[in-house]
Amino acid sequence: MTDCLGDEAGDMTPMDLYEKLTSQGDTVRTLKTEKAAKADIDAAVQLLLKLKVDYKQVTGQDYKTGCPPSECAVSQDNGPAAAADGEDMVDPWNVSTTNAKGVDYDKLIVRFGSSKIDQELVDRIERVSGQKAHRFLRRGIFFSHRDMHQVLDAYEKNKSFYLYTGRGPSSEALHVGHLIPFIFTKWLQDTFDIPLVIQLTDDEKYLWKDLSLEDCHRYAVENAKDIIACGFDINKTFIFSDLDYMGASPDFYRNVVKVQKHVTFNQVKGIFGFGDSDCIGKIAFPAIQAAPSFCNSFPQIFKGRKDVQCLIPCAIDQDPYFRMTRDVAPRIGYPKPALLHSTFFPALQGAQTKMSASEANSSIFLTDTPKQIKNKVNKHAFSGGKDTVEEHRKYGGNPDVDVSFMYLTFFLEDDEQLEKIRQDYASGALLTGELKKRLIETLQPMITSHQERRKQVTEETVKQFMTPRPLNFHF
Amino acid sequence: MTDCLGDEAGDMTPMDLYEKLTSQGDTVRTLKTEKAAKADIDAAVQLLLKLKVDYKQVTGQDYKTGCPPSECAVSQDNGPAAAADGEDMVDPWNVSTTNAKGVDYDKLIVRFGSSKIDQELVDRIERVSGQKAHRFLRRGIFFSHRDMHQVLDAYEKNKSFYLYTGRGPSSEALHVGHLIPFIFTKWLQDTFDIPLVIQLTDDEKYLWKDLSLEDCHRYAVENAKDIIACGFDINKTFIFSDLDYMGASPDFYRNVVKVQKHVTFNQVKGIFGFGDSDCIGKIAFPAIQAAPSFCNSFPQIFKGRKDVQCLIPCAIDQDPYFRMTRDVAPRIGYPKPALLHSTFFPALQGAQTKMSASEANSSIFLTDTPKQIKNKVNKHAFSGGKDTVEEHRKYGGNPDVDVSFMYLTFFLEDDEQLEKIRQDYASGALLTGELKKRLIETLQPMITSHQERRKQVTEETVKQFMTPRPLNFHF
Repeated sequence: MTDCLGDEAGDMTPMDLYEKLTSQGDTVRTLKTEKAAKADIDAAVQLLLKLKVDYKQVTGQDYKTGCPPSECAVSQDNGPAAAADGEDMVDPWNVSTTNAKGVDYDKLIVRFGSSKIDQELVDRIERVSGQKAHRFLRRGIFFSHRDMHQVLDAYEKNKSFYLYTGRGPSSEALHVGHLIPFIFTKWLQDTFDIPLVIQLTDDEKYLWKDLSLEDCHRYAVENAKDIIACGFDINKTFIFSDLDYMGASPDFYRNVVKVQKHVTFNQVKGIFGFGDSDCIGKIAFPAIQAAPSFCNSFPQIFKGRKDVQCLIPCAIDQDPYFRMTRDVAPRIGYPKPALLHSTFFPALQGAQTKMSASEANSSIFLTDTPKQIKNKVNKHAFSGGKDTVEEHRKYGGNPDVDVSFMYLTFFLEDDEQLEKIRQDYASGALLTGELKKRLIETLQPMITSHQERRKQVTEETVKQFMTPRPLNFHF
Repeated sequence: MTDCLGDEAGDMTPMDLYEKLTSQGDTVRTLKTEKAAKADIDAAVQLLLKLKVDYKQVTGQDYKTGCPPSECAVSQDNGPAAAADGEDMVDPWNVSTTNAKGVDYDKLIVRFGSSKIDQELVDRIERVSGQKAHRFLRRGIFFSHRDMHQVLDAYEKNKSFYLYTGRGPSSEALHVGHLIPFIFTKWLQDTFDIPLVIQLTDDEKYLWKDLSLEDCHRYAVENAKDIIACGFDINKTFIFSDLDYMGASPDFYRNVVKVQKHVTFNQVKGIFGFGDSDCIGKIAFPAIQAAPSFCNSFPQIFKGRKDVQCLIPCAIDQDPYFRMTRDVAPRIGYPKPALLHSTFFPALQGAQTKMSASEANSSIFLTDTPKQIKNKVNKHAFSGGKDTVEEHRKYGGNPDVDVSFMYLTFFLEDDEQLEKIRQDYASGALLTGELKKRLIETLQPMITSHQERRKQVTEETVKQFMTPRPLNFHF
């Protein structure tokens, strides 16, 4: 699983970026002229779009051919602008948009070919589970799905399923955004009473980042502690590091090889944008993220069965892996995994990018003190308010682009309170400082209690969660 | 490890081949005109050469542009001819030449950048080991090496090494050619008193062939019995199936991932000729054949050491894997493996191709009865003799292209007897029938006693050899 915003832009000067963009534009034109393979053109265009977004971020200007950054002081307007050709950039390594409201998720559903989680599906989940829908469902944070109705059809006929989610352990530091899939997965586990496998892709982080194997593995174990602190049931949850489990389960490796036989380089090039100069580890990796979608990768849990349906709650940027998996599944005799997709958790600076652990000022970490939380929200959280109190009182704020309000939609459980805050902020009754205060008061106790639960997670507990073993579950 | 001659040519008509060749010629020209990447051009040329050899095999004619096979009854001469541009085809999946004497191994040494095993090295091996050199060394069957002097330098300073060889288990049936690396490896093990790991690449066979995982794994275990029957020391030998060992050793997987991080698609494209439509499993596989070259892939044997030098005896067609491995090794902090390369074991029909288990008539199997051996040699072994007894007596035979004589160089231990046979055959004193009789009398008891030893290999013994465990060896 990947969760980091591309790092390349970080160290580049506006001129570096300008030159890279110009050369990438040439590449795209050449490919189109030469009628190159669609996948090649798509990959080049994706990179071009990403560079344009980076350029805009770094310079505050739109890129213009023939107009280097120092010479052109055009439109310093930092407001929302359409992305290069109106498409947001969403893949496992990059999430960005030029729209301050964030990615256009309805468009993404059309582009990815998934289905919207509509009110009917939310109602049905409540009916089948006998539980009130989680706030992430009520508020469209989990907004898209594949085959969820099929999962519920089967569940109604007493055919159970299992959950699979994961994380790419690229550092010790988790931020609040990382909790989203885990908070929701815990709710699904409790609600449907089903087993859960959590993959920590330490091998992937080694392949993608400038990190040692040892560090990636250590991050996996440290991250597992934060995951465990979310409250998963030890009797129904198996957490594994790829580096460990690949070397502990011939059945897992067999499924990896099966997937690897049925996916070509052309396919991963088209899906993930890999190129000829990528290492062969990256090229083969998608099979490793695919394999836990098949229950016989875990014979200790599923006792040789290969027909237990898998449901994957994850952020929408991970969907490319599972589109590939769903394509391969029937060809190797397995059921396709179903999916529930979440939106991204916005960076403090605004919903144009997701929160990223590698940019400290964009993130509220699970290790932050109450004071740090207060300072970061007050200092960095992008505000939808007006420039002066007078204007704000008169015209009201814009909750749709206000990061503090967005965070409250993630973490404030009470629907009525949230709606009141929205109305008061929009009317101008609630000032930005007051809104931030509400967020700070919501985050501080949440993170403090997470820290307390994490402290109670012993090495012994981690070891138990991470040991391949039968789970307390019978199909 | 791969050992099969390309299967594609088998079912093609001369016209099919002609058309494929013509189209491939166009491809090469187009690539050259467009100044495509060198690796792409090389791969296309390699395929072109292979098709030309297939065409010659199927039609008995050289391919000529614009001249389809039915219309051109030119040169039906089956004698030795230079390959398309004088280069033999040698890679892990194809070995062929148009020269009846076989591949030009001196040229191969230059092409691959390895070193010739000269008399000086043979003498030194005798001196250092205190043993007479194996007949494969005395007769140039192991003819090329990398870093063997370095291995001996270290050995003289009491720094030991370990052996690594392997096999791709594509069927239950091994032929006598498959024994060559194992016979020699056993000699090395006995002579230098060192541990040995034998990799059975059942994952590779699954990726390359139309076989199930289960069949590939079963072939691995069956092949292990034949390997064990070669007489390896159970206290110094670990045999493993990739499908099993990958799922049993986190350290092995860690080395696989390390190699995968340091090799790009461009590199494997150049080395192995992989293309965009190849599956990602094939593309990543070379790392799996590389990993056993590093001793810490076997912590149960080498107790956490990562500096024990590896020596790989193998057929020269496997060298591409280890050129890649040697390129990666220093970049991940490991010593480069040393190599000893053997020539190919010729097919019964002649040294233009190597013996292939998938072509029953080209092979003498380890399961053949004495009668089958006799019939196959008499019927199929390509003869260097003259057409009539009278001519043969007058002009003599040609041992250099005679397959029966070649086989005797592999299996007849006595140097003087072998030289006498060569002289008598060349002079015409020995007739082809008599030469074949000598070969039959050499092969029959050798294979019968192999069969007897194999019968004594119990499931329990195989399990022991294939269990990861410490070996009886201390560095």
